[in-house]
Amino acid sequence: MISITILGSGNVAQNLFEAFIKIEAIHLVQVVGRNTDAFHYVQGKAGIATYDTELKPADIYVLAISDDAIKEVSDKLSVNGLVVHTSGAVPLSHLGKHQRIGVFYPLQTFTAGQIISFDEIPVCIEANTEEDLQRLEQLGKLISSRVQRLDSQKRKALHVSAVFVNNFANFMYTLGEQICSENDIDFSLLTPLITETANKIKLMPPSQAQTGPARRGDQKTLHAHLALLKNKDQRKIYTLLSNSLKAMYTAQNPNEKNQ
Amino acid sequence: MISITILGSGNVAQNLFEAFIKIEAIHLVQVVGRNTDAFHYVQGKAGIATYDTELKPADIYVLAISDDAIKEVSDKLSVNGLVVHTSGAVPLSHLGKHQRIGVFYPLQTFTAGQIISFDEIPVCIEANTEEDLQRLEQLGKLISSRVQRLDSQKRKALHVSAVFVNNFANFMYTLGEQICSENDIDFSLLTPLITETANKIKLMPPSQAQTGPARRGDQKTLHAHLALLKNKDQRKIYTLLSNSLKAMYTAQNPNEKNQ
Repeated sequence: MISITILGSGNVAQNLFEAFIKIEAIHLVQVVGRNTDAFHYVQGKAGIATYDTELKPADIYVLAISDDAIKEVSDKLSVNGLVVHTSGAVPLSHLGKHQRIGVFYPLQTFTAGQIISFDEIPVCIEANTEEDLQRLEQLGKLISSRVQRLDSQKRKALHVSAVFVNNFANFMYTLGEQICSENDIDFSLLTPLITETANKIKLMPPSQAQTGPARRGDQKTLHAHLALLKNKDQRKIYTLLSNSLKAMYTAQNPNEKNQ
Repeated sequence: MISITILGSGNVAQNLFEAFIKIEAIHLVQVVGRNTDAFHYVQGKAGIATYDTELKPADIYVLAISDDAIKEVSDKLSVNGLVVHTSGAVPLSHLGKHQRIGVFYPLQTFTAGQIISFDEIPVCIEANTEEDLQRLEQLGKLISSRVQRLDSQKRKALHVSAVFVNNFANFMYTLGEQICSENDIDFSLLTPLITETANKIKLMPPSQAQTGPARRGDQKTLHAHLALLKNKDQRKIYTLLSNSLKAMYTAQNPNEKNQ
């Protein structure tokens, strides 16, 4: 049996709560938040506390709170046991006040009010002793089929990659939405294309799946597209991404005919 | 019964062939290509011809060939009947040699050797008479649940949007793959995140789903990420997209606290 207390009441905290509560081998001791009104989802299945109260003993304290708050909350926390945060970007050292520290980073995007299955979500773990690493591995495997040890440096690099494939890919969808709206076109026409593009990476590396006018070096279409874009940021982004894309594939295949 | 001849032997041509061949109300007259060796998939289910031979009569001739080749092939084609192309970017006028012309543009990304279901794929149609529009609508509805009339100008804008949500989103995946590879991280850790990001647009507009350090105006993380990126193009793209993203949300919510 592993006993756990979750600090935080946002999307990650709530999703972890729902994942942990299903597992018999996990005892959820308390959930802790500034505003206990947020804990409507707890429904008596765990204790509820605020940061000002003394917390009950637990094996692992999970700080599922915003990056900026981790150091401050950790510094004020007086507990024994393993203290971990759930952030992709914050180094292990921000928990430095405590002796036994670690990271339990579920690599996924969480949406307010949406509970998702942890089964397929990679959980990246880090700790400062092999024993605690094994403990986090054990906890991770209870909710996910994929647990990966990653040190702070690699986790940071993974987090930057996640910004590209999640935040920036979503921004590309937003720009597509914007162009559709400017031209009175229903954006939902693009839904199947977006789904298929994302699904393709399960079949082949994205570098091999690349298509489009820039990939083909099709200058005529590139110029026609730029002429159609009236928004300055759209034009800047179209130009930079097309040039960078072209350069990547020209560098890889200098003798390839660009069509 | 609609009789159809497909010109071309690439991914779009093959996918249309497989979709049409299943429909009883469609008679596939011929498939036409430069190199008839490519028509291994036809298996006697339609006639095979080259561009040099005289084609048999058909109701609709579908030019499923590369954008650059459309005008040239159309100009050499001597047929009666409706001549359509399948491109998002080429204007209707490139088929100008013929009297009855149109567009039959399936909005999807096709992969060599992969046959996908047309059911959910929007087919965008255009023609120069109402009668031919109705004929293309009829054909589209035989293979897809979504047929959309779009003139050349709107189709072009839709095609630019498709470049953003497909080509550029995939390029974001490629940059993520590159950063993972540079840091010896398994890119497949990001697969569930990519899938979930794409699926989110079915629940809410991407402009509402936006997350990440740039969205939050989290300068500390932005600087830490830039320090980690060693590749010049990665840095340029990270900076431009972050700034443009920040500006978009600051402009929308000038009083919002950027956290």
